[in-house]
Amino acid sequence: MRLSRYFLPVLKEDPKEAQIVSHRYMLRAGMIKQQAAGIYSWLPLGYRVLKRIEQIVHEEQIRAGHIPLLMPTLQPADLWRESGRYDDYGQEMLRIKDRHERDMLYGPTNEEMITDIFRSHVSSYKDLPLTLYHIQWKFRDEMRPRFGVMRGREFFMKDGYNFDIDRDSALHAYNRHMVSYLRTYERMGLTAIPMRAASGPIGGDNTHEFLVLANTGESEVFYDDRVTALKLGDRAVDYDNRAEVAGVCDEFTTLYARTDETHDAALFDQIPAEHQKVGRGIEVGQIFYFGTKYSEAMGATVVTPDGSKVPVEMGSHGIGVSRLLGAIIEASHDEKGIIWPEGVTPFPVGIVNLKQGDAAADEACAALEKALLAKGLEPLYDDRDERAGAKFATMDLIGLPWRITVGPRGLQKGVVELTSRRSGESEELSPEAAVERIVEIYAAHR
Amino acid sequence: MRLSRYFLPVLKEDPKEAQIVSHRYMLRAGMIKQQAAGIYSWLPLGYRVLKRIEQIVHEEQIRAGHIPLLMPTLQPADLWRESGRYDDYGQEMLRIKDRHERDMLYGPTNEEMITDIFRSHVSSYKDLPLTLYHIQWKFRDEMRPRFGVMRGREFFMKDGYNFDIDRDSALHAYNRHMVSYLRTYERMGLTAIPMRAASGPIGGDNTHEFLVLANTGESEVFYDDRVTALKLGDRAVDYDNRAEVAGVCDEFTTLYARTDETHDAALFDQIPAEHQKVGRGIEVGQIFYFGTKYSEAMGATVVTPDGSKVPVEMGSHGIGVSRLLGAIIEASHDEKGIIWPEGVTPFPVGIVNLKQGDAAADEACAALEKALLAKGLEPLYDDRDERAGAKFATMDLIGLPWRITVGPRGLQKGVVELTSRRSGESEELSPEAAVERIVEIYAAHR
Repeated sequence: MRLSRYFLPVLKEDPKEAQIVSHRYMLRAGMIKQQAAGIYSWLPLGYRVLKRIEQIVHEEQIRAGHIPLLMPTLQPADLWRESGRYDDYGQEMLRIKDRHERDMLYGPTNEEMITDIFRSHVSSYKDLPLTLYHIQWKFRDEMRPRFGVMRGREFFMKDGYNFDIDRDSALHAYNRHMVSYLRTYERMGLTAIPMRAASGPIGGDNTHEFLVLANTGESEVFYDDRVTALKLGDRAVDYDNRAEVAGVCDEFTTLYARTDETHDAALFDQIPAEHQKVGRGIEVGQIFYFGTKYSEAMGATVVTPDGSKVPVEMGSHGIGVSRLLGAIIEASHDEKGIIWPEGVTPFPVGIVNLKQGDAAADEACAALEKALLAKGLEPLYDDRDERAGAKFATMDLIGLPWRITVGPRGLQKGVVELTSRRSGESEELSPEAAVERIVEIYAAHR
Repeated sequence: MRLSRYFLPVLKEDPKEAQIVSHRYMLRAGMIKQQAAGIYSWLPLGYRVLKRIEQIVHEEQIRAGHIPLLMPTLQPADLWRESGRYDDYGQEMLRIKDRHERDMLYGPTNEEMITDIFRSHVSSYKDLPLTLYHIQWKFRDEMRPRFGVMRGREFFMKDGYNFDIDRDSALHAYNRHMVSYLRTYERMGLTAIPMRAASGPIGGDNTHEFLVLANTGESEVFYDDRVTALKLGDRAVDYDNRAEVAGVCDEFTTLYARTDETHDAALFDQIPAEHQKVGRGIEVGQIFYFGTKYSEAMGATVVTPDGSKVPVEMGSHGIGVSRLLGAIIEASHDEKGIIWPEGVTPFPVGIVNLKQGDAAADEACAALEKALLAKGLEPLYDDRDERAGAKFATMDLIGLPWRITVGPRGLQKGVVELTSRRSGESEELSPEAAVERIVEIYAAHR
């Protein structure tokens, strides 16, 4: 993409309404525009990151054997009357009347609708296990939306639902989600710690939240700091192997890590003093096992091998897709702007032409762009007629992890400069070697 | 994907509520489930086709140089008061009050919001031309939603908006959209004819609808039947070349083709009698040039090279993404079920194992599945313990364009059977040759 043809409305000034760094940088980098309180347009750069994050979530859910579908944003109120939540949910539920005065709502979550889909089509244990998920826009009418996309009203979320024949199978589904989430967050460059949590309006007693450590987090967290060193890495996990999946979950949940809601001071005190940490965290996902709460209320039963009918065992599992952009920025930035992890960056690399209009520089930049495109790595090429300082400032603000700088002087020596946004370090190398390096770096992130 | 693990709830009976074939087959093939009048869940098979269609739309918009972003589903009423459409729009606009009693609406289209984004960030002719688009859920509160996804209330639509310095540039954007739409529909296996149309509530005097011929179409259409033979094919079009793009538009709009709204009997009579055709059509897209209607009302101006300020010239251009599923089925089916064009099929090929549990058959099917996956072509493998007739009926209903049938008898001869859903013709060939044929067929559709 050439910047002269792109729509990247960066702001020079810090926007007054932004209280936290991710909100400030998303506005300044031209990623979002507020359209109403807690409701945003995703401008082209922000949209690209949103789609990258959505793609990673899809890939890891499919790898775990979960099946994508898509439920609508609007739901009939009657479904929620069956579960009893229509009256319980409170003012965060956006209630709507259509032209025929029928009660509708903008879905804040989908337990009722997915249970309705299940009971309409599944009646035998033979069709289990089944995990269905979607990634869809949702709405919660927050009293005071704030912090940009971190606490918006209209937000993009992955929510998945497992249907199982018994408690053990449902707990395996729970564990499968935990492992798939760990991999999902790692691919985004995040350390997200599963912490025992309270269940709230979803119900159920087995639930973990995933928290990213950040000073601006809404939750106070208490943890053994050795938990932050755990990594899933590249290991292959067989999602059908219950013991293996449970083993990974044990590894990540044995060390103490809790939010203020479930904190237990006595347990915390048993951590060696040098590993006790208190901090703040941003919630980026939550998994629940709630058994038969919805299946009983809504009549979602299956026939077992012995011919009896039992309500299906369920759980629900969510990832805050749009909120993740804010969480990643909170965890990865400096005073110049965002630093995107390679897994989610909107463009893998930026090209800065130091002397637009210079035939050699223009030609070298076009050749780099073409070589990268041929490798499936679309660069953002700043081909504007601007001074170098302004181009560097834009690249630093929008946070592409790698930059190739091209100028007449370097080209005379046959080199361009490859710079890491994170370390700030540069090296000179031939254009061909620079492309090769970028290809190598991203091979690990596909 | 193995059918034993998938969620494909096919129906044996014709659903009573479905009046047209696409609605009937989408329900029977387990593609959609109605959640409220005109509001559908997209079950896994339907979701896959929806995503394929969305992907083709994205690819052709990006090829034309248009830039994706994403606007929210809910909009503040105040934007629509600026254009005057809040009061004009009528009961099809779903009006909502949030918890603070602020007037909101579920966007039926986005002229106002995109104009607001433009005026907030663009002020110079130097940033033009610019075309922004998104693919997002929209809502129109139809009095009588019907025909499944063809006239739903919550629907998925691509809408794009061009911003240009003058009328000529805006007409070039209009033409660029026409050509990109022609290519989009062709990739979906459709013949969609651009027909001069009436503008309706969007405004403007230059507008074409794209119609797919089908007996169930809502519009009466009058046309010279030679127009159905026109094909864009593989020709490369330089979207920056105004004359070339206009030439393609001339080619596709010179022969008479109009809807009943703009039909001119005198012109129609000039068509040679043997080419005069009257039929019905399904609208799958529409493009508009409306000039400064919104930019004047909302103050979206740019500074020109001579320093004066002018309202920007605009147009808007839409493709009904979710409705396209219905239109494609109306145009491509038989008495057994759907016949997906290769460009949009949910799976490129089905594998039918005639004798599940037979070691040789199971092994051959698994090998075929693996070989196809390695080529990026995910098959749907019917690995259920069902009789052959039931498996064939399911494959015919869901309409995968190609089927590989594997049985012990064929394997003794070293062959499997490759069957075209469209022609019904089969040929015997080795498993390796079958994979090779599938790869060749889809090479033209990527």
